[in-house]
Amino acid sequence: MSTFFPMNNGDAVYSYSRNSQIQRELLDGAKEMMEESIIKNLDIKNILSSSNKFHITDLGCSIGPNTFTSMQHVVQVVKEKYHDNNLEFQVFFNDHVTNDFNTLFRSLPVDRSYYASGVPGSFHGRLFPSRSIHFAHCSCAIHWLSKIPKELLDKNSPAWNKGLIHYAGASNVEIVNAYVVQFEKDMEMFFNARAEEIVQGGMMVLVSPFSGWDSLNFFGSSLMDLVNEGMLDESLVDSFNVPIYFPSPDDITKVVEKNGCFSIEKIELTYPQSKLVDEADAKTFIINLRATLEGLFTNHFGSKIAEEAFTRTILKNEEISAWMQMNYKTCQLFIALKRK
Amino acid sequence: MSTFFPMNNGDAVYSYSRNSQIQRELLDGAKEMMEESIIKNLDIKNILSSSNKFHITDLGCSIGPNTFTSMQHVVQVVKEKYHDNNLEFQVFFNDHVTNDFNTLFRSLPVDRSYYASGVPGSFHGRLFPSRSIHFAHCSCAIHWLSKIPKELLDKNSPAWNKGLIHYAGASNVEIVNAYVVQFEKDMEMFFNARAEEIVQGGMMVLVSPFSGWDSLNFFGSSLMDLVNEGMLDESLVDSFNVPIYFPSPDDITKVVEKNGCFSIEKIELTYPQSKLVDEADAKTFIINLRATLEGLFTNHFGSKIAEEAFTRTILKNEEISAWMQMNYKTCQLFIALKRK
Repeated sequence: MSTFFPMNNGDAVYSYSRNSQIQRELLDGAKEMMEESIIKNLDIKNILSSSNKFHITDLGCSIGPNTFTSMQHVVQVVKEKYHDNNLEFQVFFNDHVTNDFNTLFRSLPVDRSYYASGVPGSFHGRLFPSRSIHFAHCSCAIHWLSKIPKELLDKNSPAWNKGLIHYAGASNVEIVNAYVVQFEKDMEMFFNARAEEIVQGGMMVLVSPFSGWDSLNFFGSSLMDLVNEGMLDESLVDSFNVPIYFPSPDDITKVVEKNGCFSIEKIELTYPQSKLVDEADAKTFIINLRATLEGLFTNHFGSKIAEEAFTRTILKNEEISAWMQMNYKTCQLFIALKRK
Repeated sequence: MSTFFPMNNGDAVYSYSRNSQIQRELLDGAKEMMEESIIKNLDIKNILSSSNKFHITDLGCSIGPNTFTSMQHVVQVVKEKYHDNNLEFQVFFNDHVTNDFNTLFRSLPVDRSYYASGVPGSFHGRLFPSRSIHFAHCSCAIHWLSKIPKELLDKNSPAWNKGLIHYAGASNVEIVNAYVVQFEKDMEMFFNARAEEIVQGGMMVLVSPFSGWDSLNFFGSSLMDLVNEGMLDESLVDSFNVPIYFPSPDDITKVVEKNGCFSIEKIELTYPQSKLVDEADAKTFIINLRATLEGLFTNHFGSKIAEEAFTRTILKNEEISAWMQMNYKTCQLFIALKRK
């Protein structure tokens, strides 16, 4: 069973295209490191040999606008490094087949300096011909698991996640372990596919959020409120788990070493400044999470309960602001890799 | 002003995906010729040199299923010709940015033997990096003009197309000339772009319908019925022209020679057997045209009048059956070109 549900599509009030500030802050934080990594590690003359075509992909790109900013940035940095007017860029925007590619295509920047194309499919499998990608980028995406490990749903397993919707806040270590094992399986497939697709000397940059998602507990407690009021069956909460795991530098190092085809050029946890935290803007923060998670909630609970849970979480506004000021720090993991 | 309106999207009763039999009959008719042309003209070892990646594009692909049939056929023929298990195929599905790529991607055959991607944009301009395409296919698409020549809308011009919606049936030669001039301008841009994008020795196959579209007059006369009943202002009919021109072999030869970068390997008018004609299945025929033209009609007349015009045309069912048996013959123009 796949657990993938796309970000909210279109451009309406709770759409991802209008509500992706958290993801943008991560990208802004990664911008400089990506630039440095490209300048330091990319040897374009070697990887292109006689060709003048540079192929970039954004894996798990969603519908914009963040993906356009990143792709234009990669193109810009490579152009500035090489001053080669003959270089031509082709960008492959990838996401699941259920992603709203129509919205993505219709919002492509008119003044882009690359040829654009969309590639539907899971990045846990093959997407491109072998040795055809020179630079792969993946931001805010590898933390989505391909599925929820079945132990979490098994009442007789020590990993049964009763009354919670995520490993954050779970007291039982078996629960987080089940998430880790699934993450490692997914990343094994991810790296196997990329090892085939990326040319020798080609690069891959991964950016992943690292913290802050204990805020998922606020949604969890709204759901439990509905259970206590008799509006929702508790077993529905017990059987719901958000398929997101936030990898640590060690998790990544382990999967990269197991794969064996990439060298880690840089791996770093950073704490970008967050406007949301400065202003403890809980409402924006929650709506942002909603744009990301609504499909997942609606699929499991139906739209009425999902809507009610989001509305109630917004009412916890002050409590969440206080929590943000005390505990929340935007934290991201940046990884630059090179195909050996 | 662009005149492009996509085929009816989704998969509902009047959608293009369910109503594209005419287009499929053309493709079936072209199948054998395409196979012969590939076998005779494609020198894959030369055009790929040391690479094993073969890039195909379907220009103006719409939303399927016809495009999947053609692309699989091209892949199959190339595979059978070369028996090279290392060959990898990447197919670029192209259509206007308003095309329903979500439906296209969601209906991609699961057992396809190529990597799929979508490329949004007009084929009258550049879509791909230079020398990056090995085989371009374009079926039932070049006859769509990029815009309606303005003379057709000018009351003082000899090309004013009063009371009609197409050059078919127009008595004034200036009207058809205006269509021809626009077609030549469009094809100049089309061939200039493809000359940059297709590798030396690469191929392009064009298939275009050549007749049968005088049936557009049935829609025109339904519109004039509405005018006569006072439901529609005549000036709205006078200012409406279907932006479709059916090129002759001479038209194509002229634009190819002007461009100078392609050799014509085969150019042929054929008359494939049509199930629609055998059964004089006027209803299917009209619904098929509707799936293709509804967006265009709705944009100009509004959905109420467009709907009314289509309903009335279906009522002309018997008249159209009789006309089909007397006059209609599926006729297509097949062109195989090679990049010099």
